Amino acid sequence: MTEKIGQCARRVAAIGTEVIAVSPDMGPASIESHYDEALSVPGILDEIRKGEAAGIDAYVIACFGDPGLYAAREAARGPVIGIAEAAMHAASLIGGSFSVVTTLERTCGIAWHLAERYGMQRFCRKVRACELNVLELERPGSDAYRIILAECRQAMEQDRVDSIVLGCAGMSDLCKAIAEELGIAVIDGVTVALKLAESLVQLGLKTGKRGDLAFPLAKPYTGPLEKFSWDRAPGLP
Amino acid sequence: MTEKIGQCARRVAAIGTEVIAVSPDMGPASIESHYDEALSVPGILDEIRKGEAAGIDAYVIACFGDPGLYAAREAARGPVIGIAEAAMHAASLIGGSFSVVTTLERTCGIAWHLAERYGMQRFCRKVRACELNVLELERPGSDAYRIILAECRQAMEQDRVDSIVLGCAGMSDLCKAIAEELGIAVIDGVTVALKLAESLVQLGLKTGKRGDLAFPLAKPYTGPLEKFSWDRAPGLP
Amino acid sequence: MTEKIGQCARRVAAIGTEVIAVSPDMGPASIESHYDEALSVPGILDEIRKGEAAGIDAYVIACFGDPGLYAAREAARGPVIGIAEAAMHAASLIGGSFSVVTTLERTCGIAWHLAERYGMQRFCRKVRACELNVLELERPGSDAYRIILAECRQAMEQDRVDSIVLGCAGMSDLCKAIAEELGIAVIDGVTVALKLAESLVQLGLKTGKRGDLAFPLAKPYTGPLEKFSWDRAPGLP
Amino acid sequence: MTEKIGQCARRVAAIGTEVIAVSPDMGPASIESHYDEALSVPGILDEIRKGEAAGIDAYVIACFGDPGLYAAREAARGPVIGIAEAAMHAASLIGGSFSVVTTLERTCGIAWHLAERYGMQRFCRKVRACELNVLELERPGSDAYRIILAECRQAMEQDRVDSIVLGCAGMSDLCKAIAEELGIAVIDGVTVALKLAESLVQLGLKTGKRGDLAFPLAKPYTGPLEKFSWDRAPGLP
Amino acid sequence: MTEKIGQCARRVAAIGTEVIAVSPDMGPASIESHYDEALSVPGILDEIRKGEAAGIDAYVIACFGDPGLYAAREAARGPVIGIAEAAMHAASLIGGSFSVVTTLERTCGIAWHLAERYGMQRFCRKVRACELNVLELERPGSDAYRIILAECRQAMEQDRVDSIVLGCAGMSDLCKAIAEELGIAVIDGVTVALKLAESLVQLGLKTGKRGDLAFPLAKPYTGPLEKFSWDRAPGLP
Amino acid sequence: MTEKIGQCARRVAAIGTEVIAVSPDMGPASIESHYDEALSVPGILDEIRKGEAAGIDAYVIACFGDPGLYAAREAARGPVIGIAEAAMHAASLIGGSFSVVTTLERTCGIAWHLAERYGMQRFCRKVRACELNVLELERPGSDAYRIILAECRQAMEQDRVDSIVLGCAGMSDLCKAIAEELGIAVIDGVTVALKLAESLVQLGLKTGKRGDLAFPLAKPYTGPLEKFSWDRAPGLP
Repeated sequence: MTEKIGQCARRVAAIGTEVIAVSPDMGPASIESHYDEALSVPGILDEIRKGEAAGIDAYVIACFGDPGLYAAREAARGPVIGIAEAAMHAASLIGGSFSVVTTLERTCGIAWHLAERYGMQRFCRKVRACELNVLELERPGSDAYRIILAECRQAMEQDRVDSIVLGCAGMSDLCKAIAEELGIAVIDGVTVALKLAESLVQLGLKTGKRGDLAFPLAKPYTGPLEKFSWDRAPGLP
Repeated sequence: MTEKIGQCARRVAAIGTEVIAVSPDMGPASIESHYDEALSVPGILDEIRKGEAAGIDAYVIACFGDPGLYAAREAARGPVIGIAEAAMHAASLIGGSFSVVTTLERTCGIAWHLAERYGMQRFCRKVRACELNVLELERPGSDAYRIILAECRQAMEQDRVDSIVLGCAGMSDLCKAIAEELGIAVIDGVTVALKLAESLVQLGLKTGKRGDLAFPLAKPYTGPLEKFSWDRAPGLP
Repeated sequence: MTEKIGQCARRVAAIGTEVIAVSPDMGPASIESHYDEALSVPGILDEIRKGEAAGIDAYVIACFGDPGLYAAREAARGPVIGIAEAAMHAASLIGGSFSVVTTLERTCGIAWHLAERYGMQRFCRKVRACELNVLELERPGSDAYRIILAECRQAMEQDRVDSIVLGCAGMSDLCKAIAEELGIAVIDGVTVALKLAESLVQLGLKTGKRGDLAFPLAKPYTGPLEKFSWDRAPGLP
Repeated sequence: MTEKIGQCARRVAAIGTEVIAVSPDMGPASIESHYDEALSVPGILDEIRKGEAAGIDAYVIACFGDPGLYAAREAARGPVIGIAEAAMHAASLIGGSFSVVTTLERTCGIAWHLAERYGMQRFCRKVRACELNVLELERPGSDAYRIILAECRQAMEQDRVDSIVLGCAGMSDLCKAIAEELGIAVIDGVTVALKLAESLVQLGLKTGKRGDLAFPLAKPYTGPLEKFSWDRAPGLP
Repeated sequence: MTEKIGQCARRVAAIGTEVIAVSPDMGPASIESHYDEALSVPGILDEIRKGEAAGIDAYVIACFGDPGLYAAREAARGPVIGIAEAAMHAASLIGGSFSVVTTLERTCGIAWHLAERYGMQRFCRKVRACELNVLELERPGSDAYRIILAECRQAMEQDRVDSIVLGCAGMSDLCKAIAEELGIAVIDGVTVALKLAESLVQLGLKTGKRGDLAFPLAKPYTGPLEKFSWDRAPGLP
Repeated sequence: MTEKIGQCARRVAAIGTEVIAVSPDMGPASIESHYDEALSVPGILDEIRKGEAAGIDAYVIACFGDPGLYAAREAARGPVIGIAEAAMHAASLIGGSFSVVTTLERTCGIAWHLAERYGMQRFCRKVRACELNVLELERPGSDAYRIILAECRQAMEQDRVDSIVLGCAGMSDLCKAIAEELGIAVIDGVTVALKLAESLVQLGLKTGKRGDLAFPLAKPYTGPLEKFSWDRAPGLP
């Protein structure tokens, strides 16, 4: 899935943008609950840590729950964009309303909460679940495409929306086919987030470091999380 | 001012993007009230009309009141982005809060209303006026830069924000200097809107035509507005 | 339609109130989109301009989108009332909820936005469209009454509302018949707006001129809109 | 105070409107808390009961807390208008914002809650207390006018509002003088409520009886409240 | 019903907590409208008055409309908890959403308004009525249990909620049976309110007396409400 | 600090309640940012995991950011209460408004977000920072008490609130002294959360497992987080 996501992103990247798709080396095999999300965050922050050392300009968190978004913004100098955030913003620019089509019903509340957090709740008409597990999206021979397409069609017909937001990074590669089949804008957050990150970098707009998103304070961490210790002086990443 | 805005946009445009800066040939000399805004819209829609005939991919409305945004979206196939909309969205991606620094107190309510409309009110801490007329921004020898800089400094220090949004297209060229002077992200909507428009075009995301933003219905217009008559079949611009 | 609206208003006007019903001499034949709305505004402002010269006490904008309401308030000394605004306010005084029955689905978003703008969203349970064109309301032999009545009945039965707001000035003359047929309060904004305008005039309450709704600033307008130039000193209409 | 309120109302009543000002014969001497408000309601409902028997067309509750508004609407056939409700509605029609100037700080929360309930919170910038007891407004030689005027002036200058709402029926007679002194719209709810009630009556708009505001169910009441027993069949007042 | 409510409360009371269940000696036989609610308040305040004289530590208002809650808080030193308030708070602690199952449709608006007032609207998915009169809950041989159970089942299945809030104190004794039958958390406000009141007492948290909920001001009351006169100095109950 | 928190909780625990205060063996030394918060969650979930194995009835997360609250609720059968959540709920029961006094300015946004999430934003008037590091609260000879007391006094005097919520578990032991010094209710979330958890346990109200908070799905975790693998069948913890 990581490779697939990387390809989707590279396909729309500007000349000169290098896309590095990584999967953290700690955490859950897929993210389908608050529990999974919470435990995916250390791995994400570890990648940010490595990225900062390597001088990365910007980051995209390619999971529709945008896990660890604000923690990542604290740790990074440049922009960090979540794909739910990106997709919802784009949807609000091209129409008056969108619906989200995601994997499991149990994560719909997370999507609504993100919509509220980003100010996008007023554009979000419905969050729909396909009751598909994330990894089912990767299984060869899976019926996932047909099921997702059907749910998108319902969103289009019943919710009267201007666009559909795909609620899982693993659906990125289906975006174009669904859009063509249904004749409605279908938004994959991975590609939008890539373009937003690129745009902010070009405009010189970095994560604000004067307030809530300042670099973490220097302090020790214990146990298996010791490597996250932030031992540099505050403000000097 | 039109030329200045065009230059700011071109400076950040991607390779292959052609920026055409136009000023409508009807309407007010500057936009500083609901009245001015309302009367600037026919001119904007006229440019959209010409643009559609010329096959333009996307539009930026370069006035911080985003006048005629939804009417323009109805008339256009591709994306139409307002600069207030663009700047506020960008601010919400790089920090938890922003303040707007605009020209006249009387337009602050308009900015707040836009923030609400776009879902950005929760990020907007204050809308501040410099009590500068728009055209004063263009007057050689004007004290505008100093006054705007002072207001931005107050926003930074008193409102505890992560970024400052410049509330007038005519301030675009001051953006970089203020950011450098103050050490805070300063956001000019013109450049952000250009990048958002470019991004949406590249992603193939066009204005939704199934609902509120469908093409206008065919009907005659009378008097000096006759040329706006929409005589093509609905759905076929 | 203008004459019909005038008659409805006159029927409820107080002794001493003179109702002048006018249709602007520029703009669309009917208003059914953001585009139509935006282009109806110059004509409305032209009437305000003439009205101010003639010493008119108050204005009613008799289109359910309340086009140009704030611009008109800037240009006028006395009150300016929109019919959507008036109808929604009245509905909130006689019950806990209302539904709007309007013409085209594509304008429902406009009605919702007005409800939000006026603080009336909390009382508005649904905006329902009849999929009738505005001018169909005027066509002899049209089936409009039956279709509107059916939609109102659905609003009454399904939305459990205390009243129904008619979402088009062209429905004014149907108000009484529907109310009698259904036994529910049916609100026509034209008559309510007339009474609100009369009331404000009698109470000496004029549009506030100290803030957002102050008279427009003096400045030239170009092209076919030249006559809108506001060349008097600010504050002196 | 009752007589004074009656006079203010009569001064703006239409020809043919008979204004009957009554003070309930049970309850507190003045209303300055939730406790007072709650205990003023039986007296108000008693007047409604008498009024319904007498065939009264509409009611105004002349206390800025609008005590018992919804209970009164249940008991009455015609409209019932609260003066806070009326004043706030009027303020929202003539400007973008208002402040309330009321008696005691402890009642400010009540005013805010009403503003929310009526959808008027978005227009209300501040609720200001003069720390005057209600009955002080009636005391000959009291300094009330000067104190209220000073607070209104502060509202005008600091809150940048378009109008001031007087937050006590006992201030009705000061309305004109303050408005003239300050040159800003000052709104007394008593007169506005009278005009709204008159307007609704003329338009044939009565309190909705199909839902939340249907007549109370028939049932016995015990103790000193026995006379409130509602023994008529529901729907037949 | 009073005795039943008392028993439910006693069953969960801590050792040392004495529960005194009282029914006011004035007011309606049941509470099913704004009118009933308003007229139940004097009786409630009378009990608070007696309770304060007797040194009661805390109060629970055992009617789902939480009638007179703020007036009671003014009159009492210790905490006063409404059962709707308590139940909704508890529901928000154990899940993301709840639905209310109450008696009559006409009171649903009251429940929604309380949810808003307490900040619990965001957790409340639906307010459902059984169209049962309150006293029907007490009638031997009544079908009430079956009807309420059926509505709770619908709430569980259709609203996808984590818990169900029973919307009437008279349903307290059904709580356990419904929970066991359906396998979902069913919340009775009486028992939760009792525990909240006990907890606040133990923590020494009393009703704030510095602002909106300060003791009523000393003043006379007239007529049958004379005994409510508050003749003690403010702040000295 | 863990021991201190445990003592505060034990002091108010009911007879029969056993309080076990633990500090996770992985994570940051203190929690003062999104980054710290995110990295404190694995340790918290590890304790929940151990607690579930040991048959713990309920959990309190004793950090004012309520880190990992929803993930913990998924992993636990019984209630899980955050101390910010608990304190804010209690404050809303005893008054109309509260202010939070917390440690660092940079965490104020987190507190506001929690207030919104819990529906408590409407009661929260201000979040105030003392600019004290969390560990400074523990340093012998620190000036922390004096600084916190001063900020609480400002909250009381300037914000006109009914209570003050202490915004850090490390302030628990100061609660009583500040309340006595200032004569206002001061709320420590640790003790309130303990009482809420106890109450829910006694009432048999457990975390809803039918929706968003169902047990995590079975799946492997990699790297240092391997022990979090959830290998039991869904629904069977």
